[in-house]
Amino acid sequence: MTRNAWNCVAILLLVLLVGIPLAQAQAIGLPEVSKQTIECFDCHKKQNPVIYQQWGASKHFRANVGCYECHGAEKSDPDAYLHYNQTIATLVTPKDCSRCHSREVSEFTASHHAKAGRILGSLDNVLADVVEGNKGMRTMGFPEGVSAAAVNGCWQCHGSQVKILPDGKPDPATYPNSGIGRLNPDGSEGSCNACHVRHEFSAAQARHPDTCGKCHLGPDHPQKEIYEESKHGIAFFSKEDEMNMDNNKWIVGEDYWAAPTCATCHMSQTRTQPVTHDIGERISWNNRPIVSVRPEVADAKMGLKGKDMPWQVRRQNMMDVCSACHNKNWVDNFYIQYDALVELYNEKFGKPGKELAALAKPLKPYDAPFSAEIDWVWFELWHHEGRRARHGAAMMAPDYTHWHGTYEIAKNWYTEFIPTLTEMAEKGIHSGDAEKVAAGKALLAKIEEITNTPDHMWSVDKMDPAEKAKRDKARDEFKARYKE
Amino acid sequence: MTRNAWNCVAILLLVLLVGIPLAQAQAIGLPEVSKQTIECFDCHKKQNPVIYQQWGASKHFRANVGCYECHGAEKSDPDAYLHYNQTIATLVTPKDCSRCHSREVSEFTASHHAKAGRILGSLDNVLADVVEGNKGMRTMGFPEGVSAAAVNGCWQCHGSQVKILPDGKPDPATYPNSGIGRLNPDGSEGSCNACHVRHEFSAAQARHPDTCGKCHLGPDHPQKEIYEESKHGIAFFSKEDEMNMDNNKWIVGEDYWAAPTCATCHMSQTRTQPVTHDIGERISWNNRPIVSVRPEVADAKMGLKGKDMPWQVRRQNMMDVCSACHNKNWVDNFYIQYDALVELYNEKFGKPGKELAALAKPLKPYDAPFSAEIDWVWFELWHHEGRRARHGAAMMAPDYTHWHGTYEIAKNWYTEFIPTLTEMAEKGIHSGDAEKVAAGKALLAKIEEITNTPDHMWSVDKMDPAEKAKRDKARDEFKARYKE
Amino acid sequence: MTRNAWNCVAILLLVLLVGIPLAQAQAIGLPEVSKQTIECFDCHKKQNPVIYQQWGASKHFRANVGCYECHGAEKSDPDAYLHYNQTIATLVTPKDCSRCHSREVSEFTASHHAKAGRILGSLDNVLADVVEGNKGMRTMGFPEGVSAAAVNGCWQCHGSQVKILPDGKPDPATYPNSGIGRLNPDGSEGSCNACHVRHEFSAAQARHPDTCGKCHLGPDHPQKEIYEESKHGIAFFSKEDEMNMDNNKWIVGEDYWAAPTCATCHMSQTRTQPVTHDIGERISWNNRPIVSVRPEVADAKMGLKGKDMPWQVRRQNMMDVCSACHNKNWVDNFYIQYDALVELYNEKFGKPGKELAALAKPLKPYDAPFSAEIDWVWFELWHHEGRRARHGAAMMAPDYTHWHGTYEIAKNWYTEFIPTLTEMAEKGIHSGDAEKVAAGKALLAKIEEITNTPDHMWSVDKMDPAEKAKRDKARDEFKARYKE
Repeated sequence: MTRNAWNCVAILLLVLLVGIPLAQAQAIGLPEVSKQTIECFDCHKKQNPVIYQQWGASKHFRANVGCYECHGAEKSDPDAYLHYNQTIATLVTPKDCSRCHSREVSEFTASHHAKAGRILGSLDNVLADVVEGNKGMRTMGFPEGVSAAAVNGCWQCHGSQVKILPDGKPDPATYPNSGIGRLNPDGSEGSCNACHVRHEFSAAQARHPDTCGKCHLGPDHPQKEIYEESKHGIAFFSKEDEMNMDNNKWIVGEDYWAAPTCATCHMSQTRTQPVTHDIGERISWNNRPIVSVRPEVADAKMGLKGKDMPWQVRRQNMMDVCSACHNKNWVDNFYIQYDALVELYNEKFGKPGKELAALAKPLKPYDAPFSAEIDWVWFELWHHEGRRARHGAAMMAPDYTHWHGTYEIAKNWYTEFIPTLTEMAEKGIHSGDAEKVAAGKALLAKIEEITNTPDHMWSVDKMDPAEKAKRDKARDEFKARYKE
Repeated sequence: MTRNAWNCVAILLLVLLVGIPLAQAQAIGLPEVSKQTIECFDCHKKQNPVIYQQWGASKHFRANVGCYECHGAEKSDPDAYLHYNQTIATLVTPKDCSRCHSREVSEFTASHHAKAGRILGSLDNVLADVVEGNKGMRTMGFPEGVSAAAVNGCWQCHGSQVKILPDGKPDPATYPNSGIGRLNPDGSEGSCNACHVRHEFSAAQARHPDTCGKCHLGPDHPQKEIYEESKHGIAFFSKEDEMNMDNNKWIVGEDYWAAPTCATCHMSQTRTQPVTHDIGERISWNNRPIVSVRPEVADAKMGLKGKDMPWQVRRQNMMDVCSACHNKNWVDNFYIQYDALVELYNEKFGKPGKELAALAKPLKPYDAPFSAEIDWVWFELWHHEGRRARHGAAMMAPDYTHWHGTYEIAKNWYTEFIPTLTEMAEKGIHSGDAEKVAAGKALLAKIEEITNTPDHMWSVDKMDPAEKAKRDKARDEFKARYKE
Repeated sequence: MTRNAWNCVAILLLVLLVGIPLAQAQAIGLPEVSKQTIECFDCHKKQNPVIYQQWGASKHFRANVGCYECHGAEKSDPDAYLHYNQTIATLVTPKDCSRCHSREVSEFTASHHAKAGRILGSLDNVLADVVEGNKGMRTMGFPEGVSAAAVNGCWQCHGSQVKILPDGKPDPATYPNSGIGRLNPDGSEGSCNACHVRHEFSAAQARHPDTCGKCHLGPDHPQKEIYEESKHGIAFFSKEDEMNMDNNKWIVGEDYWAAPTCATCHMSQTRTQPVTHDIGERISWNNRPIVSVRPEVADAKMGLKGKDMPWQVRRQNMMDVCSACHNKNWVDNFYIQYDALVELYNEKFGKPGKELAALAKPLKPYDAPFSAEIDWVWFELWHHEGRRARHGAAMMAPDYTHWHGTYEIAKNWYTEFIPTLTEMAEKGIHSGDAEKVAAGKALLAKIEEITNTPDHMWSVDKMDPAEKAKRDKARDEFKARYKE
């Protein structure tokens, strides 16, 4: 939605009068609290005192940016409604925020974060809508129903597509929602208060790892848990007091040296880089898909300008962050270790798994995604376990790399994935249905082929004899030591 | 146990002399430290200095309420024993605490917390006693043995039934124990120090979410983990310093506005409600059972006075808490989202699952609970996964609602529950045993019926064709976008 | 590596001049910052300012122990290299640290921590190298390849065997690595900065439970999670400010009384015991193996001097710690509860499981460890679930004892372990292969035998009728109460 031009004029006037170049005029503030905002206080200070107090603790207070400056709306806005003589909107969108914070919104809008709402049609979306859900939640905006699993689950992180009801208020299935990729009625994507939490909107809060943990945790992307195990997280949580989190300038090595947070490495200013709200500029692997890809590849698919930023540049950006605390040799070696783990996963499990899963498709009793056990088994292998291993290595949390990662991948592969596929292949071969017979044979052949590669042949006792002898000796020595 | 009347007389005298109305005379304190308590110091200050120091940090210190005032006992008390010339008891029970804190104990006694020890005969109890345990732990109080899995597991949260040995001391299988529903020798239920941890007994400690996390975590009720993911927990853990946790008056919106803790919403004073130690007064769903019920229904079954407090009143109580930080529209919409998730679970999984599990019973090889795989599968579906989804939605932690909740429910339902039931049904039908044949047919018919409801028919490729076309289109668009 | 003798001489001189007895002369410090260290600053202060600042916050700063004092090397050291005119080494090993901290290193070297790198040949090692991994990571030190799962997983906690390249720098597969049992080129074992984190090396950091959580978490030894659930952890995390963590003298009951950390109980000074860096001196059960053993037994197998320290002495050591906060009766009873849980696990699951797993071996299709499902099932039963139950009881976290522990053990035993074994036995019996027939019969007989012991016969409806009647009654009463 657009707002009346008064605020912008005020800021512009300030800029002109005080002679500040426009480029630096971001978020300068207003000369006084507006009369409209003072009217808001009349009720909300009493009814919802915490909102008022949190605002009082915010930088917005000092800048005289109050309720109306953000919630005020034009009558023509799709989500405007009359509220005690003022035209306001419930939602404050990135477009609204951009009136003062244009650079931040522009960076954010170019990021994957801003596109998190585009999951319609994804496997995750099928899960929430169909497999876990139903159309039992009926609201004015969803007369044919919507899945409460999507509303309470996916949308809370990914963002809802906000529907505005005839009275100008958001449909209850779509709001409350502060998902980072929220699709707003004004066409903007995202929700700044996903991280800059209402109604203090502080940078300190957004720099705190727990804030990222609202979404980056759980079986499929446990970054918060990974961080907590890492030396980085250990240092942070034991030295939070020394982090100078509230400082305006917050440069690692200048303003704090106790620990890095998620923001330190992925977003915040360094001695040589500016702060960025595009979370991908320092990431050199995209570990989301079945097989890890370089981020510029992912950006190209999404039409983001990051398509022109090769991973080597992004890695240099991150290495610059690392150098505040680690010497070059250490950082170089770390990346050799991390890359090797990504490659191990990709080559041993990701790529062959993808081939096998594709060959199994014609053998499913029903077409629907997640209608056969193999769908779940394969999904967890790459989407949950495979990501955990790669993310664990990226952030140096060995339990996530190994026990929650490669251990679970291997267990799944050898005790679930391959046996389930084999059973499907054999069932197909004995089905009498020519198509299924052919599909079964093709799948079985591929299973045989992959099982007999160096990566997997240990599982059918075909390890290289010299290697086996060496291992047997080590095992005997270990057993002798522990007499188990 | 009852104690000598001296303390109460002292308090009464104080009340009369200073003219304080009795209703306000709770926890007033004594004029000086008793000579008995001073005698306790002689040894315990040296032997267990932390107890002495923690007491020194407590409000009890300022009130001259020392060791003897709580541990002193009458000779006739079942758990009294002579200890260096003083008659004392190890346990301090709610009945003891009620001598000064009568209102708190009376509220607590009416709550589900106080009844947590009543698990004898429950499925959980069978698990710990029989399935996981044995009678290998022999103590004087359990000459025929008791299960160490119950002692170290269940009882530590639910509370033990304390047995007093001939020397007046508690049997070691039943103490140490600070389970919140402990069954005490004096007939009282509960343990105040479950939350008001020894020996400081502070309100600040009881207000801290970690305190609740002693029991409210883990696979079957991860409230602490859920809170940590929620915006509420994020705000708390990053702004704990601003919470004014030690304040006597602790009203959200007046004394703090950084974040709510568990206590804030469920127990503590608000601008309009007094503090309550009955944890159920603001809860509008009981999500413990297989199918969620309203709390007054659960209270009626347990004979609690909460049976007369309808859920609408409780919800109003909670909405009053919410209003400190959120406007009415936000709160109303939140409850629409939450209710929809409870209903989704109840209708799609809870109710039909309950019917199916009942029909499977005659087909189990052995009668004993947990003797067949289906028992475990169904138990985890409702007791673990079903609760996680509902609790996750209740407290707005989307990963718990979805990945730890509805995702796991659906995975269990389609890959474990239905296949296991189907196998049991078919085995029964082919058993030759007339009863089992009938039971198998009945079960299979019900499986068919439920699988062909709108909620489940997607899994046998019977989705409404229009819906399917819409979904296929979205999937193709998504794939095109990500080229997967 | 050894370093030039200058430092030691300086310390010795100081000792002689000031007349401090040598035994107290540990870590005294140097008269001024060395010129070599000042040269290091020239670059590193600019390039890696955090290292410089962390050092500035350390005790090393006040002792004039700078970069060169730790990283300086002799030319003859295997890992020495020339770096801008100075001969230095990347690694600082316990041997280096022992020049000033000899007592600490000597205690540490006698501990299990120092031996954590000796996993070559263990089951865990097979997992990372073969099952999860491959030889895809090629470095100069590993021309035939090494497993990235070991490098990024196991080694990060257990420690790598550091390989030095011709240029004197560590091979990137083996460094960065701060695993606590690292095998260093100078023959020393361990890494002091596993806990005394670079570059502040503080005691406060090492006392913090999160530091231990770098490795002691996850499915197979979740000590950190257990601690967090326990009253100990609850008290710590809510009262961290009162812990006086930075104090030099840090005696529980004298310097702090808010809570104990891992260090408090296992390592730190008490009123009667000195600090120890041998983590095993207060532990009375080793719960690592399939069946719990006393620590002196484990120490004897590893050739550690702890073989002469019986568990009773260690328990007394721990009871001394407990007594700071708990009275004797409480502590005695706690140990009765804990011992009973260890025994329950050992007798009901550990010992019979070990027998069954051994009998199943000849029935595996392939010999290789983890090539059959039974390998995984049994491994998780003892290595993951069995440890969680025992560790949970050791530290009083009931959810870990029960839900993550004995519940999972029992579920695994009755729904995975016994059924998988039974299937293997039956397959063997019907195989026609005489050896397999015999092995199958032997296994089946043992399954029958164990299933009919008092611990397990409930699962085939053979519970003692009197016991069963009692339980049925309790169940009916419970159901009547909850009308389920």
